[in-house]
Amino acid sequence: MMIILRPNTQQDKITQLENYIGRLGGIEIQHIQGQDTTILGLSGDTSRIDPGAFDMFEFVERTMKVAEPYKKANRKYHPENTVINAGGVEIGGKNIVVMAGPCSVESEAQVLSIARDCKRAGAAILRGGAFKPRSSPYAFQGLGMDGLDLLSIAGRKTGMPIVSEIMSTDHLEVFDREVDIIQVGARNMQNFVLLKELSHLRKPILLKRGLSATIEELLMAAEYIMAGGNDNVILCERGIRTFETYTRNTLDLSIIPVLKRQSHLPVVVDPSHGTGLWWMVESMSKAAIAAGADGLIIEVHNDPPHARCDGQQSLTPLVFSQLMRSLKAIAQVEGRDI
Amino acid sequence: MMIILRPNTQQDKITQLENYIGRLGGIEIQHIQGQDTTILGLSGDTSRIDPGAFDMFEFVERTMKVAEPYKKANRKYHPENTVINAGGVEIGGKNIVVMAGPCSVESEAQVLSIARDCKRAGAAILRGGAFKPRSSPYAFQGLGMDGLDLLSIAGRKTGMPIVSEIMSTDHLEVFDREVDIIQVGARNMQNFVLLKELSHLRKPILLKRGLSATIEELLMAAEYIMAGGNDNVILCERGIRTFETYTRNTLDLSIIPVLKRQSHLPVVVDPSHGTGLWWMVESMSKAAIAAGADGLIIEVHNDPPHARCDGQQSLTPLVFSQLMRSLKAIAQVEGRDI
Amino acid sequence: MMIILRPNTQQDKITQLENYIGRLGGIEIQHIQGQDTTILGLSGDTSRIDPGAFDMFEFVERTMKVAEPYKKANRKYHPENTVINAGGVEIGGKNIVVMAGPCSVESEAQVLSIARDCKRAGAAILRGGAFKPRSSPYAFQGLGMDGLDLLSIAGRKTGMPIVSEIMSTDHLEVFDREVDIIQVGARNMQNFVLLKELSHLRKPILLKRGLSATIEELLMAAEYIMAGGNDNVILCERGIRTFETYTRNTLDLSIIPVLKRQSHLPVVVDPSHGTGLWWMVESMSKAAIAAGADGLIIEVHNDPPHARCDGQQSLTPLVFSQLMRSLKAIAQVEGRDI
Amino acid sequence: MMIILRPNTQQDKITQLENYIGRLGGIEIQHIQGQDTTILGLSGDTSRIDPGAFDMFEFVERTMKVAEPYKKANRKYHPENTVINAGGVEIGGKNIVVMAGPCSVESEAQVLSIARDCKRAGAAILRGGAFKPRSSPYAFQGLGMDGLDLLSIAGRKTGMPIVSEIMSTDHLEVFDREVDIIQVGARNMQNFVLLKELSHLRKPILLKRGLSATIEELLMAAEYIMAGGNDNVILCERGIRTFETYTRNTLDLSIIPVLKRQSHLPVVVDPSHGTGLWWMVESMSKAAIAAGADGLIIEVHNDPPHARCDGQQSLTPLVFSQLMRSLKAIAQVEGRDI
Repeated sequence: MMIILRPNTQQDKITQLENYIGRLGGIEIQHIQGQDTTILGLSGDTSRIDPGAFDMFEFVERTMKVAEPYKKANRKYHPENTVINAGGVEIGGKNIVVMAGPCSVESEAQVLSIARDCKRAGAAILRGGAFKPRSSPYAFQGLGMDGLDLLSIAGRKTGMPIVSEIMSTDHLEVFDREVDIIQVGARNMQNFVLLKELSHLRKPILLKRGLSATIEELLMAAEYIMAGGNDNVILCERGIRTFETYTRNTLDLSIIPVLKRQSHLPVVVDPSHGTGLWWMVESMSKAAIAAGADGLIIEVHNDPPHARCDGQQSLTPLVFSQLMRSLKAIAQVEGRDI
Repeated sequence: MMIILRPNTQQDKITQLENYIGRLGGIEIQHIQGQDTTILGLSGDTSRIDPGAFDMFEFVERTMKVAEPYKKANRKYHPENTVINAGGVEIGGKNIVVMAGPCSVESEAQVLSIARDCKRAGAAILRGGAFKPRSSPYAFQGLGMDGLDLLSIAGRKTGMPIVSEIMSTDHLEVFDREVDIIQVGARNMQNFVLLKELSHLRKPILLKRGLSATIEELLMAAEYIMAGGNDNVILCERGIRTFETYTRNTLDLSIIPVLKRQSHLPVVVDPSHGTGLWWMVESMSKAAIAAGADGLIIEVHNDPPHARCDGQQSLTPLVFSQLMRSLKAIAQVEGRDI
Repeated sequence: MMIILRPNTQQDKITQLENYIGRLGGIEIQHIQGQDTTILGLSGDTSRIDPGAFDMFEFVERTMKVAEPYKKANRKYHPENTVINAGGVEIGGKNIVVMAGPCSVESEAQVLSIARDCKRAGAAILRGGAFKPRSSPYAFQGLGMDGLDLLSIAGRKTGMPIVSEIMSTDHLEVFDREVDIIQVGARNMQNFVLLKELSHLRKPILLKRGLSATIEELLMAAEYIMAGGNDNVILCERGIRTFETYTRNTLDLSIIPVLKRQSHLPVVVDPSHGTGLWWMVESMSKAAIAAGADGLIIEVHNDPPHARCDGQQSLTPLVFSQLMRSLKAIAQVEGRDI
Repeated sequence: MMIILRPNTQQDKITQLENYIGRLGGIEIQHIQGQDTTILGLSGDTSRIDPGAFDMFEFVERTMKVAEPYKKANRKYHPENTVINAGGVEIGGKNIVVMAGPCSVESEAQVLSIARDCKRAGAAILRGGAFKPRSSPYAFQGLGMDGLDLLSIAGRKTGMPIVSEIMSTDHLEVFDREVDIIQVGARNMQNFVLLKELSHLRKPILLKRGLSATIEELLMAAEYIMAGGNDNVILCERGIRTFETYTRNTLDLSIIPVLKRQSHLPVVVDPSHGTGLWWMVESMSKAAIAAGADGLIIEVHNDPPHARCDGQQSLTPLVFSQLMRSLKAIAQVEGRDI
């Protein structure tokens, strides 16, 4: 951490600040004397220090963090890729994992039919929404516990592990029992109470990036889960909010190489929510694999115009199976399998 | 709702879409025939329709919502200002209400001393954090239930109503009992499970705008609380995320006249979090009042450099009392009292 | 264009608005009568109408555009892909075109050596900066006209067409004579005076997206050039400004399928400026091709640490030649050549 | 400038970097040895160094600037407020200066009538557009040189200094002769060729913030003008681009105290373009003054529905005169006059 002082700060002020830092304990101070500026460089365990604290001394101009605040999620301390086993499927290894299924579970027939189509086309994991975060209280909110049961049945019948979104800490136990991967939605990425609860499980967590979350914030959300002991975190890019209105979100594929460099955790991309438009899913899926993603999560619906949510971003099973064929070709070039 | 069709869409396609809409029930369709474009205008109760549903028909180019999706929060249906009574203090009336106190409650002596200073300077409500949402799992997370007790004691001793942030649905009962206003933090603005639970209380809710929430999303979050029967929602601007890095957030005062036009709910501004810099609080507070805000929520700390969080954005009691004097002058010009 | 009126607008007001629209000429009006809302749908040539004009009538709630404002750049009116010939190289056809070279031309030896390395590795066009837009007046501003001469010499000696950025209308003639593609930088995307001047040439224009330009604004900037008669516009994504600070910009690959759907113009991606980090160039280049880009523009420098600008985003010739090999594999999967 | 090295960088690498820095000349290096990290602190004249240059050494993790890159615009080196005389009106002094007039000059009668109304209401300077930057090539582009003449006549007849936007370096001479303040529009804030030309004049420049310009970039654009010798720069906030679509832009009043702290230049706010909605102008104008602005620039039109551009954000003369009365009250509280 660097504390930049205002020009011509008197020595007695500097001493006052040094004494303050001294009382924090375990921090070593070094001076850099520039032309107009004195800088104090702090080393030691600075992760407990709030960088804003120093700004209260009126002779402090600015404080800059140097060290990354995430430790367990940081590749610096864990150079090897983390490979996560979710119901027998490895995520983060050589295989690219495609998770597919309906935005929301609507009936046993629907989810089973879609699950079979997805499996046939090569999907490894079945996704499906039971509890749906909707921006309107008047919109369909998902089938809830019944939806989770139906998804679970479809998973068992097709032999696919399942992933579904949790919205409440009240459902921790049932999710831990029923699903193979617990999804944390974008709007809950900084629901710290939920993250802490999930940190006590050993279940894989698919952590979606918040709508305006920085890379560091996404990794700090992962750190919350890992700090409590659950190392099975899968990071998921699903589009960020920008000024553009043509697409629902701006899918940020540039985060893939950054996450791969900064962290050892697997990275999955959601081109369905990331764009909000079904006809963009193919090109964005291919690009995600070319950029180094470990997996994809894609919405598939047997009858998109009658889907109870997000029909406009769902693929039909036919389009999905064509997509899988083109993904295999790209994966091969990248030295990976699907 | 308007459905814009692709140029030269055949009549049989249009009929197919009309039949689909017909099956939704209660929707009337009108045609607008443009040069290249046919548009279907839907009227009736379209609030239940997902505008994306139509995008699945490949001959639909785009769908546009016309009606605002919020009803109970909408001034159109409630022209009069809502005035909310929080522990005897009216918010949204002629008086501008200042809520002040420490970012986080640290000890009985601290919160009581700050509370007394705030009251003396003219604050009407005591704010204080017990459960703190921190982006790092390693940072101070607040005193929790003990903090809430200390805040409650300070409130009673000074005769001030209190406001504090809730982070978990597990604490609903204690918050409903102990505090006068329950605060929903920016990161929980779309924690729909929490919003639904709060909708069953009658306690005033201070709803903070999410970091990248649109005006419509903020009002839809209010709608979640109101849809369940709790009309006591106070809207709070606390800065949005932009590309600027000098300030912690970009305080968006332009939302004030928009919220006042679109909604009947009271509007409060948080210049402390909205800027992250204590020396900006005065100018932003004055500007907020000049722009029509009904209140302010301001961090005050007796010893900012030793605050356990957000010291850099807290005012000392002395600076706060000077601030209150200049706010009174602005309020008077606006025909209001503090 | 749709004009949405406030609830319960009186008929005499509506008549007043209709008369106003009638005087604009050539516009037909249709009514949609909703539950609370009356909407006027305007058809005819609405491209000359400022949608804001109607907002001045206090009973108008909102105006919504329906038709896209770009005509010549719109695929709707030109279904076939445009293929542009730049000094003998076709852009927008089956071949993916790689433009490579130094951020700024520094000496004859430098640019010639880099040009030869780029050509050997498979680049088709030589890029190089002579006039450099720098955010600081104290930074190196490029060699100017001398730089253009050196680039031109290197182009001729290696037989490569050249592309360079124009910054001033004073240089129109020399750029038209010396370069094969004139680049308009992101900061000049809405320099309408420059765009109009370029519209009178027949030279291909590489139009970079502005830092916060929407897709529609980019296409309207292209429209400026095409409206004056120059149809040879190449669109270039080079990263947008978001809240993220890890990368210099956020490279938006999701714009590729959108531009391809909305427009017939070729689309090129600049992963060097789009990320600002050389080690991200490979993954982003591969992803761009997988997403459907027609070309790439990449910075290559023989000695990046001593580059006079943007060294951190330049590849060495060795890394560039490795990159070209992996791009060829992806291009092949996409049924294209490099 | 701080160079942060990767953990466990070998001494020979550090020596290599030090030698490289040594060859740059005039830079002194100091070491900070942290737990995992070595940091090199550079002092001396680092303003000529591109911070990215060091990122090319693969053992450099990051480079951080410490010093602000603007010198002449920096309050640190010019503690006193700059007061600029524009045709006899002082900007940046005790008086708050209101510039008002039509978005675009349409006829002599129109501009003269508006000018008289504005003057009567208390405006000090007449604004009017002759050359209009329009995002569509098909929209009205302003009356050009004729418009400038009409504005000039209206200025002389009413005794008001005039301000108008320049779009081309071809018009430098005529603007220098005819107008009292030359406006640089948001889209030209980083048109460095134009800024350099303006730096050779002594005419006051009203520099509008770019749509997504950071505070530092705005000050660096001012620095461009000042570096060439023209110290008469007036900074203007006019709204930034965010994710919000209700307003045309998000007016950022929080920039006012920051600019006042970081720079000595006068700060003016444009609530008309900053919001795009006439009914927001009053509250935002009052807030701007309460936040410390030195002036306002406001669109006034005698017949907004028939304005040839931006009618929806123009005030009628009547509303403008009411606005001026409420601004006077706020100004008085702030110890200023209008």
